[in-house]
Amino acid sequence: MKLVYRFGNGRTDGSARMGDILGSKGANLAEMCRLGLPVPAGFTVTTDVCVHYMQRKAAPRELAAEVREGLEHIEKWAGRGFGDTDNPLLLSVRSGARVSMPGMMDTVLNLGLNDESVKGLARASRNPRFAWDCYRRLIQTYGEVVLGVKPRSADEPDPFEAEIDRVKKQRRVKHDRDLTAEDLKELVEEFKRLVRRRTKHEFPADPDEQLWKTIAAVFRSWNNERAVVYRRMNDIPDDWGTAVNVMAMVYGNMDELSGTGVAFSRDPATGENRFYGEFLTNAQGEDVVAGVRTPKPISELHSVMPAVYRQLAAIRGKLERHYRDMQDIEFTIERGRLFMLQTRTGKRTGFAAVRIALEMVDEQLITREEAMLRVEPDAMNHLLRPIFDPKEKSKAIAEERLLARGLPAGPGAAAGRIFFTAETLQKARKGRDEEQYILVREETSPEDIKGMEAAAGILTARGGMTSHAALVARQMGKVCIVGCSEIEVNCRQGSMSVHGQKFQEGDFISLDGFVGEVIQGKIKTIPSEVVRVLVEKTLKPEQAPVYQRFARLMRWADRHRRLRVRANADHPDQARAAKALGAQGIGLCRTEHMFFGERRINKFRAMILAGTESERRKVLKELLPLQRRDFEAIFREMPGKPVTIRTLDPPLHEFLPKGGKEIREAAKVLGVSPEKLRQRSNELRETNPMLGHRGCRLGITFPEITEMQARAIFEAACRVKADGVDVEPEVMIPLVSDVAELVQQRRVVDRVARQVFEEAGIKVRYRVGTMIEVPRAALTADRIAREADFFSFGTNDLTQLTFGFSRDDVGRFLPQYLDEGVIRRDPFASLDITGVGRLIEQGLELGRRTKPGLKVGICGEHGGEPDSVKFCHRVGLDYVSCSPYRVPVARLAAAQAVLLERAETHH
Amino acid sequence: MKLVYRFGNGRTDGSARMGDILGSKGANLAEMCRLGLPVPAGFTVTTDVCVHYMQRKAAPRELAAEVREGLEHIEKWAGRGFGDTDNPLLLSVRSGARVSMPGMMDTVLNLGLNDESVKGLARASRNPRFAWDCYRRLIQTYGEVVLGVKPRSADEPDPFEAEIDRVKKQRRVKHDRDLTAEDLKELVEEFKRLVRRRTKHEFPADPDEQLWKTIAAVFRSWNNERAVVYRRMNDIPDDWGTAVNVMAMVYGNMDELSGTGVAFSRDPATGENRFYGEFLTNAQGEDVVAGVRTPKPISELHSVMPAVYRQLAAIRGKLERHYRDMQDIEFTIERGRLFMLQTRTGKRTGFAAVRIALEMVDEQLITREEAMLRVEPDAMNHLLRPIFDPKEKSKAIAEERLLARGLPAGPGAAAGRIFFTAETLQKARKGRDEEQYILVREETSPEDIKGMEAAAGILTARGGMTSHAALVARQMGKVCIVGCSEIEVNCRQGSMSVHGQKFQEGDFISLDGFVGEVIQGKIKTIPSEVVRVLVEKTLKPEQAPVYQRFARLMRWADRHRRLRVRANADHPDQARAAKALGAQGIGLCRTEHMFFGERRINKFRAMILAGTESERRKVLKELLPLQRRDFEAIFREMPGKPVTIRTLDPPLHEFLPKGGKEIREAAKVLGVSPEKLRQRSNELRETNPMLGHRGCRLGITFPEITEMQARAIFEAACRVKADGVDVEPEVMIPLVSDVAELVQQRRVVDRVARQVFEEAGIKVRYRVGTMIEVPRAALTADRIAREADFFSFGTNDLTQLTFGFSRDDVGRFLPQYLDEGVIRRDPFASLDITGVGRLIEQGLELGRRTKPGLKVGICGEHGGEPDSVKFCHRVGLDYVSCSPYRVPVARLAAAQAVLLERAETHH
Repeated sequence: MKLVYRFGNGRTDGSARMGDILGSKGANLAEMCRLGLPVPAGFTVTTDVCVHYMQRKAAPRELAAEVREGLEHIEKWAGRGFGDTDNPLLLSVRSGARVSMPGMMDTVLNLGLNDESVKGLARASRNPRFAWDCYRRLIQTYGEVVLGVKPRSADEPDPFEAEIDRVKKQRRVKHDRDLTAEDLKELVEEFKRLVRRRTKHEFPADPDEQLWKTIAAVFRSWNNERAVVYRRMNDIPDDWGTAVNVMAMVYGNMDELSGTGVAFSRDPATGENRFYGEFLTNAQGEDVVAGVRTPKPISELHSVMPAVYRQLAAIRGKLERHYRDMQDIEFTIERGRLFMLQTRTGKRTGFAAVRIALEMVDEQLITREEAMLRVEPDAMNHLLRPIFDPKEKSKAIAEERLLARGLPAGPGAAAGRIFFTAETLQKARKGRDEEQYILVREETSPEDIKGMEAAAGILTARGGMTSHAALVARQMGKVCIVGCSEIEVNCRQGSMSVHGQKFQEGDFISLDGFVGEVIQGKIKTIPSEVVRVLVEKTLKPEQAPVYQRFARLMRWADRHRRLRVRANADHPDQARAAKALGAQGIGLCRTEHMFFGERRINKFRAMILAGTESERRKVLKELLPLQRRDFEAIFREMPGKPVTIRTLDPPLHEFLPKGGKEIREAAKVLGVSPEKLRQRSNELRETNPMLGHRGCRLGITFPEITEMQARAIFEAACRVKADGVDVEPEVMIPLVSDVAELVQQRRVVDRVARQVFEEAGIKVRYRVGTMIEVPRAALTADRIAREADFFSFGTNDLTQLTFGFSRDDVGRFLPQYLDEGVIRRDPFASLDITGVGRLIEQGLELGRRTKPGLKVGICGEHGGEPDSVKFCHRVGLDYVSCSPYRVPVARLAAAQAVLLERAETHH
Repeated sequence: MKLVYRFGNGRTDGSARMGDILGSKGANLAEMCRLGLPVPAGFTVTTDVCVHYMQRKAAPRELAAEVREGLEHIEKWAGRGFGDTDNPLLLSVRSGARVSMPGMMDTVLNLGLNDESVKGLARASRNPRFAWDCYRRLIQTYGEVVLGVKPRSADEPDPFEAEIDRVKKQRRVKHDRDLTAEDLKELVEEFKRLVRRRTKHEFPADPDEQLWKTIAAVFRSWNNERAVVYRRMNDIPDDWGTAVNVMAMVYGNMDELSGTGVAFSRDPATGENRFYGEFLTNAQGEDVVAGVRTPKPISELHSVMPAVYRQLAAIRGKLERHYRDMQDIEFTIERGRLFMLQTRTGKRTGFAAVRIALEMVDEQLITREEAMLRVEPDAMNHLLRPIFDPKEKSKAIAEERLLARGLPAGPGAAAGRIFFTAETLQKARKGRDEEQYILVREETSPEDIKGMEAAAGILTARGGMTSHAALVARQMGKVCIVGCSEIEVNCRQGSMSVHGQKFQEGDFISLDGFVGEVIQGKIKTIPSEVVRVLVEKTLKPEQAPVYQRFARLMRWADRHRRLRVRANADHPDQARAAKALGAQGIGLCRTEHMFFGERRINKFRAMILAGTESERRKVLKELLPLQRRDFEAIFREMPGKPVTIRTLDPPLHEFLPKGGKEIREAAKVLGVSPEKLRQRSNELRETNPMLGHRGCRLGITFPEITEMQARAIFEAACRVKADGVDVEPEVMIPLVSDVAELVQQRRVVDRVARQVFEEAGIKVRYRVGTMIEVPRAALTADRIAREADFFSFGTNDLTQLTFGFSRDDVGRFLPQYLDEGVIRRDPFASLDITGVGRLIEQGLELGRRTKPGLKVGICGEHGGEPDSVKFCHRVGLDYVSCSPYRVPVARLAAAQAVLLERAETHH
């Protein structure tokens, strides 16, 4: 069995297909060599060696010889010797498993240095500062990674960094780069002393010992506590092991003919087919990322090093043709010589994804089916989000108003006044709703929810894509940038500063949530092309290239998908937008949202305050024409399409006023004392309203409410049908946990239907069905199906109950759960297939066992999330229903589900 | 096919075994005839006829002839003619299905009367008032039941009763019994007019028409709305149909040699083998129940009608020998002649059930196995409840201080001062905890919860065994009597009156919750014999006959059962009591209850207020020795038995002070500002705490808490083991919804265990397992079992989440659900086998698929509920765990499960 795979210098043993034994990093380096690209020579120790090492606590006997051969292979390529004191070869060692695993150790650079060879390097590079900096970095990372020199408690600072800080203070300098070669030399001595003190051993001067101990440390890291826990949690087999990549070091900071950069083979923001990226001369990779110096656009490389630029541009084309997708590459130029360090599929915005996929079809690089699979369905939603006026945005960038970059956690564009606490923002907004506001926080917490709701955009200095801010913003559909570490927030002073520039409460900033850019000042936002063409009808299709691409992709998707897509819409204008975006019906119309108008809310409150059934009926009679009018308008928007209307769902307490002033005002309007209102509110308060007196439980204790709603539905249907418009009403009973509840509510609905049809002299075909959103409903779906014409899985509540997570409270622990890998994805964003999915499959199977043709859909927010949609297709649901602006997402995801299914059956 | 089964007068076609076609009532009447007992002659129309009628909307052709024969059979027995105007035979018609079905029509009496025959009856009975009263009752019930004359809306009064009220007002009398024959005659005319006005038809004078229309109405009632809904909800097949029982009327109100009574073949309160009951001369059945006249004890019948008494006593013996169980009988004496109207198995207290079963074994009436099955397991709990000092109770009864009777909804005895609102009771109790209080309400509602908690007993005027008061009292283990309609509560005045006697706030009453008696004044309560012998050890077994019976039955049960029974105990004294009552270990020790002591709660609060991990660790270090001491004491109480300790479960908010005063006091003790405390409390407040940051979610975000608890457990275990005591600790992780949570918490526990064992130089065998209380845990139990040494189903939370019911809020709709049959049993009292049970079976099956020998138990409150225990046995759990005082219940139920299983396999 081969233990070591070499790459580069004309001899490459591996390829991209060998990820299982080489890890993804190693396999990709090999592939670039195969393509003849300039990659520094190196070798990969296979994952099998790791497994052997873990089992026997020792490497296979043959390994030493193979590594020796690998070293010679590198030395030959580099023309330097590993351990040579005059012109030393330095190595990097990186771990690399089959799948990416956070919590595994990463990288040790500059292996091969010691007190002698550092001088050789200084001479050879003619740069002593560079040499000593390499050496101190080696001792530091080797000390941490291989020797385990770490802070002894969470409160203690990193011991190496503490030394650096001490020396900087002594020298009165601010940045690491201000330290001289002499300073670094002193640091090296301090570091060695630190290692001796902590480990009772000297830092090893022998390059071979350095290399072998580092390889062993990478192997051991496979079994460190965090990695083991991570694997158990994520079902990664323990016997996969990690590979180890050993590679010659190359340096972009040798001189002005050296440099380093990152680039994309097409524009990752727009998708335009142009070479896009940036570089720095005389710099290391981390300088590009750190933002200390401003990198230059890749096009300028042409004037600096024309030959290198031409070579790079050729590589760009070669890689794209080879991988048939947009690539994200890293390169280093050492004294005019180009080296490729990495290539991988490039991340892109939704706009870019769509454009690249379609243009690659036109370029005959990929097929239409591949194009459909290439676009993340969420991209279809990005195409609907508000954008910055392109001219104004270009102007802002030209004026160098780009302040910082963070992680794009919520797509869209927003500009507004900044506030640093939820309270001040809410207070500022009061009475000035027309203005827009941006909440800026170090990071957000559950107490900030109201402020986030009131803001148009959210910006945080800390936190990643799974942080509280990112989760909540996605849930609320807010523009959001997180982890923008360049800003410093001082929320007590009500200010923030970015690279020394200070911003006060009330100042304007603009957030581009598509790419994560924070821009100074106020940039005008406009609706997306697609919305202007389809919903607002203020733009002609031929003037809207983004819309045209959207429409083309949607046409293809609709030709393939089988799953039907409906929308959740509570108002006629939502229904209209949904239809424009392709909805094939309404899957969920929440009647309670109709009660929140100024006049209606007080009628509804009067109903809640009514002491007797007959009083209640009196008020309900007044609400009837209002509901009927709403339903009529929605039916007219959806001719010939099913409209599913859910009876009253939320607990009554939600309709009552909260604050003292609100209570006094409402009491006045209602003609009761504030005490009475407060008392009723107290009576209705529940410990766990989510599990309380709501859903069909209300309809059962107050059947007159269901009666009124059924009457409004059927009267509206009859009026619309009388005008010759096709109607297909579906009455949906929420929160059923037992068939008996459905029996009872269905009787009320059927009775009212008979009465209304008799009165109107018109009959309308209708269905009565139920939400399956309580675990017990799924578990007893065979019984429930006896009484139901259709099921609709309410996956929001079903997720809450199956996990025992309150959606309102989950922010207290879910971010940490996601960070630590206890949960892989937010189950409210993407359907939990392992648990909730099992329940859905069970409910579906039991329901169709009773009624083979039972129509079944889903109407939780998962209905617009691509992986959830694919699950729905796979288990055999008839339709998904989601918010209008996610209908295109669901359409594409449904098409992908078909294509994936086809690919599977072909394998 | 035979359509009509006759009984009585020497010819009886049916028997007790024919309940399917005769209904239970008809079958029992037939059986009494077979035994040669004096039953008025009659016949039963079979359920088959009902089915035929429902299908074809007409009776089978042969029915007329068979009913004719049946009528002749009755006429022959009665010596009167049906429709005879001089000496009319009157009939009763009653429905009677296989199973009892509320919402079905009931009874029409006195069929056969008309304007002519009423005069004949007046003459024959020599009692015109009696005759006219019979006639007006016929028109009223026939009008309602057969002709459908009813209030036209819920607000309208019953039209017949309205007429009666009008006439009473005119005559200025208060009670129906004050109306004269002339008054009743006028009412008859009014009633007939009412029928004519409402139905446009005359009340039928033809007895045959009366009879046939009534039979048809009973058949139709099988398909009335409530009955159909009830059947659908309760899985009763539509094609069972109901039988109809037609029987000669007999009268106990003819003269002083007539009478009526109810009796039990043994004392239903104590089980003593003596004839027990009461009777009234010259009275009808409803007079005994109505409480207008005071009935006499059955023994006095001996002096009034010695021959009848002897006959009745002989029947008592015959029925008991025949049915081999205690009987509850109804009889009527018409002019010195005894008639049996009903016999059925008698209801009894727990004391009586045990005594009767054991004595019947000694009398060789039944076997030991039958005796074990005869006793409702709940009876074992009754034997542990406090009782009234027997002498004081007898004295109170002798002094005629028995005020009223209601439904015994919570067993036990309680005496205290009465209060009529939750607030006044709580206020009165403040600072006077040594006194006892009784909450008296018209009926209770969720707002009364705190008052119910503060009360020793609860008394309501309205509501049945499924009312809010009954449910909550049972949950809280309070003495409770509901539906005591004899009391009138005036909660605004703060008083109640019983038969004219008035009681004020603060007066004493005593409640006997075993039998439902409300007694004036304060009767001393004492602990039960069993508790005095086993727990308090203040009574010698040989002086305690109740204890001896208890112990005898428990011995038999333990010999049969296979399921192990553990107890839920949080304190050493609870563990001691549990062991005395037979617990085989601790199945749930809730560590949080240990934090509620005065000193500890503030330490725990300091932990909650800590801003950093190291501050938190400092406070946890102070809590460690306290927890360790608790665990040590519990381990010492349970040598060689498993003790399952659950890590911290409730949300932190529960530990913080609530009111302003409490906050100020706590802040002072903690040395922080009240604002800080209030702020932290606000931060921790959750919308749905049941679904919030609790259970292992706390242990994951604050692993140092789990660490401290694990350390306390293992240090305690080592100390106890060092003293030579066997320990078997089991650490249980709560609220797990994914295996990853268990992986993470288990690592913490295992790590601490290794550390402690190393420090102590002692190793203790321990297990780490998990609660299965979140639906997702049951659904993914195969994955969770990989990391768990045991499962314990937490059925309280599992029920909450499977139904989506908050236990704290369910009082708002559950009573109505139970009343209307939407739910058959409170799922928090008795495990919902259809839904939650399915989930448990699934979890068990999946868990054991991964680990075949996996130890699985249950520790919700269902662990002490008989039917739930039987379910646990059936599906194959290893143990149940319940509160100490329910351990004997579980022991008996577990034995019954084995006996039932054996009976099933024999069939």
